[in-house]
Amino acid sequence: MTSFREFRGTEAWGVEAWKAMCRVREKSPLIQCITNFVSMDIMANTLLAAGASPAMVHAVEEITEFTALSNALCINIGTLSPDWIFSMKVAVARANELQKPWILDPVGVGATTFRTEKCIELIHSKPTVIRGNASEIMAVVGASTGSTKGVDSTQASTDALEAAKELARIAQCIVAVSGAVDLVTDGKRVLGVSNGVALMQRITATGCAVTALIAAFVAVHPGRPLEAAAFALALFGLAGEIGNEKANGPASLRVNLLDALHSLDEISVTSRIRIAQI
Amino acid sequence: MTSFREFRGTEAWGVEAWKAMCRVREKSPLIQCITNFVSMDIMANTLLAAGASPAMVHAVEEITEFTALSNALCINIGTLSPDWIFSMKVAVARANELQKPWILDPVGVGATTFRTEKCIELIHSKPTVIRGNASEIMAVVGASTGSTKGVDSTQASTDALEAAKELARIAQCIVAVSGAVDLVTDGKRVLGVSNGVALMQRITATGCAVTALIAAFVAVHPGRPLEAAAFALALFGLAGEIGNEKANGPASLRVNLLDALHSLDEISVTSRIRIAQI
Amino acid sequence: MTSFREFRGTEAWGVEAWKAMCRVREKSPLIQCITNFVSMDIMANTLLAAGASPAMVHAVEEITEFTALSNALCINIGTLSPDWIFSMKVAVARANELQKPWILDPVGVGATTFRTEKCIELIHSKPTVIRGNASEIMAVVGASTGSTKGVDSTQASTDALEAAKELARIAQCIVAVSGAVDLVTDGKRVLGVSNGVALMQRITATGCAVTALIAAFVAVHPGRPLEAAAFALALFGLAGEIGNEKANGPASLRVNLLDALHSLDEISVTSRIRIAQI
Repeated sequence: MTSFREFRGTEAWGVEAWKAMCRVREKSPLIQCITNFVSMDIMANTLLAAGASPAMVHAVEEITEFTALSNALCINIGTLSPDWIFSMKVAVARANELQKPWILDPVGVGATTFRTEKCIELIHSKPTVIRGNASEIMAVVGASTGSTKGVDSTQASTDALEAAKELARIAQCIVAVSGAVDLVTDGKRVLGVSNGVALMQRITATGCAVTALIAAFVAVHPGRPLEAAAFALALFGLAGEIGNEKANGPASLRVNLLDALHSLDEISVTSRIRIAQI
Repeated sequence: MTSFREFRGTEAWGVEAWKAMCRVREKSPLIQCITNFVSMDIMANTLLAAGASPAMVHAVEEITEFTALSNALCINIGTLSPDWIFSMKVAVARANELQKPWILDPVGVGATTFRTEKCIELIHSKPTVIRGNASEIMAVVGASTGSTKGVDSTQASTDALEAAKELARIAQCIVAVSGAVDLVTDGKRVLGVSNGVALMQRITATGCAVTALIAAFVAVHPGRPLEAAAFALALFGLAGEIGNEKANGPASLRVNLLDALHSLDEISVTSRIRIAQI
Repeated sequence: MTSFREFRGTEAWGVEAWKAMCRVREKSPLIQCITNFVSMDIMANTLLAAGASPAMVHAVEEITEFTALSNALCINIGTLSPDWIFSMKVAVARANELQKPWILDPVGVGATTFRTEKCIELIHSKPTVIRGNASEIMAVVGASTGSTKGVDSTQASTDALEAAKELARIAQCIVAVSGAVDLVTDGKRVLGVSNGVALMQRITATGCAVTALIAAFVAVHPGRPLEAAAFALALFGLAGEIGNEKANGPASLRVNLLDALHSLDEISVTSRIRIAQI
């Protein structure tokens, strides 16, 4: 699998990623997030840094109207509870009714029966993209018998490739697996993304944040969720690489990453994005 | 309206703003916040950096006692839900009973019927100050037929001046409209504040944070909510200007802004505050 | 009391603290947190920076399974409400059943009757460690008639020493009192910790964060909660000292503190930890 780490995206991928970034900045899609309490700050700031517009709205009383205003919906089960799950389902149903994309982050799935059941119920409503780490994706498809330890990955992402493909086929959606190499698949095609630095795992909710970023990219690239997800993962990872150049630890990396995401320019993106078809 | 951007506050305003800042630091008012989940971290840190004391307390079981301990109440409807709205109303009633000031941030009002209705119900309880962006203020008075896009402003603040004056007269309160030039009015007098940098809009919840700061300033300046609100807006904006001098993007601006707010000194404040009667 | 501020830990304490730090990094204990909304980000990032694994899980539907996966439980009543208190009690009962350590942060206890009652109900379930500021600890034992002003301490920590000892004896647990000198006691022995800088009090939820860190240290040092709590307090304080060297205010201190916590090395820890038996 070493080849995954060493590939360089052709410049063509970089050019496409840059165009996608520009499109997010230009369109400033409104992303409705129903997400966990830990992630809200970094998720909102990630969307703002990328040029998108975040809105954390979970009251069922306003979902019918609000989801209609949104350009995409981001669902994250991190600090789930029955009433929030209900809001998620109402919002998902509304997004589906209006043919708006919605993205699922199955945080910690597999850790408890309740979490796994609710996650699978959500997946039955056909998300556009599911993004998780290897443990989570493997838990969803039952491909793993290992327990999820908190929200961190205990499986190499590449081990989850077959599980991801299977999930993509079963759920008829795009599946993205974060790891040293991120994998994005529609069940047939697979894109590998090798931007990013390991220290990002020591910042809480970076996974949640990149899921929201995927929502923003998918929102403005209708019909191309596979590529949109790969671009979001690559650009967030590149911002992490640039941010890490002057970081002294996870907290300064977080600051620098968001600054870098806001400042990404054509030269950096076209020359440093590492995406490859696998 | 260009003149708004170019005016310089007379030194008199700077001197008054500095006195107000010192008063907040000296009195360290306790500000009870019932606010959205996204804003809690930056709101608490803004209050602490300014020398005030934050307390996020929303359980109805303790509001009767806790609101009595507070020096002001900050109500923010960002991630509203029926049970949180109920807590807000209980706290507002208690604040009014005890003649304590309370400040309203009508986040995203106009986006949904539920949000607008709940916001207007709160306004019927006579806030001391309402602070929002132009879209929000215009939505409240029905002066705008445009929809609110998320929580960002889609109207120049100056366009909302008439709406602000009308709202101030109807609700018998101070209305502050954030924008390139912030406007603060009691329905007759209007103060313009032109401190701040545009990049602050790319940090989530800076609006929420400045509303909490207004609460702290109003708390220690009884009978002068118009000036207190203008001082808070100007000082927060000035902290943003100072913070921006060495910022590389929105995340480092956030850090620097809070550091600068904590370190504001007499020279900076008296020489750089830009407030003018309009 | 000046001697408290001036003592230097013998190198022996530093060596032990370093071993404890290494053990947390090696074991990466999973810490379940049921905590207030304000603290979640800094608490999770503190645990990650120290090498532990955070999980914010509060739904009663998954506590039976999730608490069983955790290595320790951190309970914080900051933004308490009846349903969250119920979750806390369910999780505490489960932790006790499985003989897992649990740590209590009685934020703002004494401010309202409801908060005090719920806090005391929790203490009846025998926490392993209680960590609070002097006002909070004194409120718990009724040793103080002063009211708690928000969540900040209005009592010098050393004034609370007798209250801490009494609480430790009554509740049969370790009690840690944060202050200029932190005190940790089992009712008989008392350790004093004098690492840290005053500016840390101007960052929201640093107290909550260090309580979570205590949970991580207690988790991997079964049978030694007194020392584990002292190590966590000392190392967090040392990270604050190192972080403060290049800080310009509370927000950069927060960033630097977390970076420093992540980077703590043997030389710094063994030479700069200040713990002494009192």
